[in-house]
Formats: sequence, structure tokens, C-alpha cells
Amino acid sequence: MKEPGHCARFFVEADHLTYSTMLALVLDNGQLDLRSDHPVPIPGPGEALLQVRLAGICGTDMALIQGYKGGYSGVLGHEYVAEVIEAPGQEQWLGRRVVGEINTTCGHCAHCRRGLVTHCQYRHVLGILNWDGAFAEYMNSPVELLHPVPEGLPDEMAVFTEPVAAAYATLRDLPADAGNRIIIFGDGLLGQLIAAALVAEGYDPLLLGRHPSKLEVANTLGIRTTLAVPGDVEFDIAVDATGRAEALSTILDCLRPRGTLILKTTAAHPGTLDLSRIVVNELHVIGSRCGPFPEALDALSSGRLDPAPLISATYPLAKAMKAFEYAAQSSVLKVLLYP
Amino acid sequence: MKEPGHCARFFVEADHLTYSTMLALVLDNGQLDLRSDHPVPIPGPGEALLQVRLAGICGTDMALIQGYKGGYSGVLGHEYVAEVIEAPGQEQWLGRRVVGEINTTCGHCAHCRRGLVTHCQYRHVLGILNWDGAFAEYMNSPVELLHPVPEGLPDEMAVFTEPVAAAYATLRDLPADAGNRIIIFGDGLLGQLIAAALVAEGYDPLLLGRHPSKLEVANTLGIRTTLAVPGDVEFDIAVDATGRAEALSTILDCLRPRGTLILKTTAAHPGTLDLSRIVVNELHVIGSRCGPFPEALDALSSGRLDPAPLISATYPLAKAMKAFEYAAQSSVLKVLLYP
Repeated sequence: MKEPGHCARFFVEADHLTYSTMLALVLDNGQLDLRSDHPVPIPGPGEALLQVRLAGICGTDMALIQGYKGGYSGVLGHEYVAEVIEAPGQEQWLGRRVVGEINTTCGHCAHCRRGLVTHCQYRHVLGILNWDGAFAEYMNSPVELLHPVPEGLPDEMAVFTEPVAAAYATLRDLPADAGNRIIIFGDGLLGQLIAAALVAEGYDPLLLGRHPSKLEVANTLGIRTTLAVPGDVEFDIAVDATGRAEALSTILDCLRPRGTLILKTTAAHPGTLDLSRIVVNELHVIGSRCGPFPEALDALSSGRLDPAPLISATYPLAKAMKAFEYAAQSSVLKVLLYP
Repeated sequence: MKEPGHCARFFVEADHLTYSTMLALVLDNGQLDLRSDHPVPIPGPGEALLQVRLAGICGTDMALIQGYKGGYSGVLGHEYVAEVIEAPGQEQWLGRRVVGEINTTCGHCAHCRRGLVTHCQYRHVLGILNWDGAFAEYMNSPVELLHPVPEGLPDEMAVFTEPVAAAYATLRDLPADAGNRIIIFGDGLLGQLIAAALVAEGYDPLLLGRHPSKLEVANTLGIRTTLAVPGDVEFDIAVDATGRAEALSTILDCLRPRGTLILKTTAAHPGTLDLSRIVVNELHVIGSRCGPFPEALDALSSGRLDPAPLISATYPLAKAMKAFEYAAQSSVLKVLLYP
């Protein structure tokens, strides 16, 4: 572990004219490249320099490698817990352990003015769009996106804050009268966290997956599971967390008329959807992306949602290539990286 | 005009063993066939025999001819105004002028018990599914689906009740906080009626179409129109009434994040939709089909919505083939048929 503040002092001595370097996992034209000489970022106005403590590999990272979003280039990684080691003008943040939201907001565009801050027209997205991510020793973040980690919440749980927030978005997006017969498609990390968030908030969802070993993990989280669509039940709500557009037709089949489909999948390729089925059955389809960090931190620190069983492995950043190989296996859930 | 009750008397005399015949436009294996010897239907328990006064050709009729719904066979037509000439056991309906809803309800299935009566699992749909339609001299309907036409509302307006109800479904399905910048795609009959219903209820929607002559008609209904997507506005709500799945991508482009897309199109062929755009922009997509008859009758009889400018032509049923040829032209809006 490096001495906190090490890089910050270096910057001051060099008057920002020379760069310190660090280990970072860079996506460059679709190729993963572990570099030891990546420049340590320099915090601009309102920003903080963070020393990454732990980061998580996400399905979106896999999709980015496959070309989702037309080819991101830069440091990957958008799930992290870190320590603030520089915060020019906002020194009260120094030394704090933080997690951070991943969409920058300009505050002035048409979307920001309407309160759609996670949809800023000029946004950068951590590790996804024009903003170097968390698979590195250090990273930058606007201070306004940071949330202090409650004392006593270990890094291994805090690192789940971003995906747990995305899972809580599902709850936020449910119409109040949508009903409570819920099926979640996809036993990957996102599907498991959505099911766990619903269980934490008093629902009793059914998780449908294709991997018995993953469904066993879900059972330890108190989630009902199945390998096949129950033929005799119509659901009020279905959540797509499969990552595969091909699953949509099956999902539509199990919804009641005027039921709700929540889409969480950001697949690299568009899917075909029989639109007339949405019309004839008068379905509601809701796209859902990022979610509320405070709710996620509360669920994690209260113990209502304990994601520990979802950790498949933890690797040092120096073995990031191996970690990604492992994470690509279908039996694996969450893989963590520490610098 | 036939003498009311003519057929009914015939049935009694023949003790239902021989059939009276009538003129009817039948869809048979994708082919329209105008038949003079189609049997007059016999009302069963709870049903009424109606003498059709006026019926409307709808885009769904065109889609059915093209194979939508896997090939309906039977008398086409689901928009009508008629007179009750037999109503066994419910004689108070005799002689009343009526319009009628088009989905039968069993009252006992899982959907009916949940109040989803237009989604009855065993439903017949007038002129669309297992129920001979209104392009005929006579037709049957369950009495419970009938609505008396207010005195003073002429047939030429009452015949629009079903599509106006479908237009009012758009209002019913709008979330209360969805916003009021509304764009409607499609200058066909349905798009025009949706725009007219929104205008009647105090909204100021923009109707986007490809036919200047149709947009001129919309203007006479008090609707703002355009031939091109305005580049400088993001809309809160977009309505797809194009009938073409290919339009979806353009429609998604003009919605703000967390905006609402209302799908009204029941196209014969499924379309491709980039699902990740729905997720990333957190859009709401709402399928919308049949609507409330009382609201439609109120809008029509109060004069808030006057569909008269939308009538392109009226044909006798005997010239139904010609009427369909005419209705297929892109410049045509509503074509009516009278027996």
C-alpha cells in the first residue's frame, strides 16, 4: 500500500509540469492493455484525486470490450471505493473513504436544468465515456459525485454501492400500482442484486437463471429461484437483466396484460422486439440505468443487503488480465481488483 | 333501408333451421370477398342482432388483409353504428341506435377477474378474432358491449366512437408527470384522432406527417403540424401512430431522457428496436390499444372533437371492393361503408 498523499506531494514539487505514473488497465481500440506508465491524473477545479482501494468488474466492462458505445478508449472501471488524497479547496474531504457516482453533470444544459442530472448532455461517464476509470492506482472525480462510506462498512461491501444503486433504480421505477408478482431474468450479478434489493425491501421476487451454481448463491441471499419459466403464473412485473436481447420474447410471454417490463440490459447489439405485442397487451416498458447511492449505502450498511456471497474472486490489479479472463466465465459473479 | 325486425321474424318462422342471407365483406385466406349469401347471424344468450347503419374502414383492416394476427378469416369491420333489431330477453334495447366495444369478456378468466376485461383470455374481437364484423347488413354483439348513441349525434360522427376511444386511451395511459411537449408521428387517421383528442383536452401537440394534404386536414382540426422533426426541441412524450416499425429510431431520437413513448401501431411485422437506448435514456414505452367509449361519446356529442373533416369518402357496401382500393391510397383518411 502506498503512503497516502504520495502523489499529491509529487505534483506540487513538479508544479504539474511532469507526470507521475501509475498502473492502469486501459481499453485501447477494443484491446485491454495493462500499463505501468499511465499518467496519474491531476485534479481540476472542484475535483478530487482518489487513491483506489477496491474496484469491481461489471458486465458493462465486458460489453465495452465488445464494442458497446462505439468503442470507449481509456481506463476501464466504474465501481470503486477509494480514499481522497487531494481535494484542492475542499480539504475537509482529505483522508475520507468514499464511493462515487459515475455521471458528471454540467448543471447548465437542458437536461440538468430539468433535474435530469444523470442525463447531462455533456456528461462524462466514469470508465465508460471520456473519463478515466477506477482500474488504476489513482483516479479523479468531481467532489460533488462523492459519497462518504459509513464507518464500519468494509471495502468489500462498499465497492458494491454503484451496482446496488442500479438495482435500487428498479424499485424507484416501479409504478405504485404495478403489482407484486415479480420475475427477474438473468442470474448474473445485476439480476442477483436486483432480486436482493427487492427482498431487502419486502418483495418476494422469483429469479430465473440458467446456472444452478449461481442460483444456489441467490438462495443464500434469500431469493427464490427457478431454471424454467413457470407455465402457470402470469407476472405483474418482469425485469430483464440477461444481457441478451434474444431473451425479450420469452420475457414478454410471461407478463400479464398491462404488466411492466423493466429493461436493465445494455447489450452491445440491438434486439428485435415484436412491437405489436407491446401494443396489444398494453405493456409498460421502462428503461432503467443508474440509481440512488444513499439508498444503496443504507441497504449495505444496515445489513439488509449483504452482497458478500456474490464475490467470486479478488485479484491484484497487476493480474487484471487474468481477472478479466476469469470474470468472462459464465459461472462467475463479481470479481474485484485492488491496486 | 330494410324494415326493422325483418330478419328477426324470419328466424322465428324458420325455427333457426334455415338461414336468412345478407351482403357481407369476408376476409378469406387473405383475400377480400364480397358475398351476397353470407348467413345472417343468430343472437345467442345475452346477445343482440344489430342492423348496421354505417361502418368505418380502419388501418387494422388493412393489416389483417396483409396477414396481421396470423390470418383472420371472417367478416371484417370493427367500427360501426347500428340499430338493435333483436335482443332476446332484453327488449328494452330494441330500436336503439348503438355503438359497441369490440372485445368480448368471459368474466371468469384470470384477466377478467383482475379487471383487465379488454384482455379476456378467451376474448373474441369484432372483425379481428373469431367474431364476424360490421362490414355486413347485420351483425351480432353481446348486449353488455353496447353503448346507446346520444340523440342528435349523427351516424357520421358516432361511427368514429371506437377509434376516438382508442385515441383517448393515449390520454388515459399518460403518466401524470409526463410533461406536455407532445409529438405525434403519423398523419393517418389514428394519428389525427390522437392529436384531436389531445387538443380537445387542452394539450397542444405537434403532428408530424409526410402528406401535406393530410396535414392541412389536421390544421382544420386545430392541430399544429410539421413535415420534419424539429431539430431544436426535445419532447416529453412521443406517440407512434405511423404503422411502420422503421419509424421507431427517429421517434426515440426526439425524446428527452425519461421521456414517454406511446406505441399505438399494430404493424403486421415486428420491428427492431435498439433496447440499450431505452435503458440508457431511461425511457418509458407504453403500449396502448382500445380505449374508453364513454369519454369518446362525450367528446363527440359535446362537439369538442368533430371528426367530419377526416371523412374522405362514403361507399355503399355493395362497392366495398372499390372502397378498399380507394382507402389504400396514401392520401386517404377515413372511408365509410353503409349497407
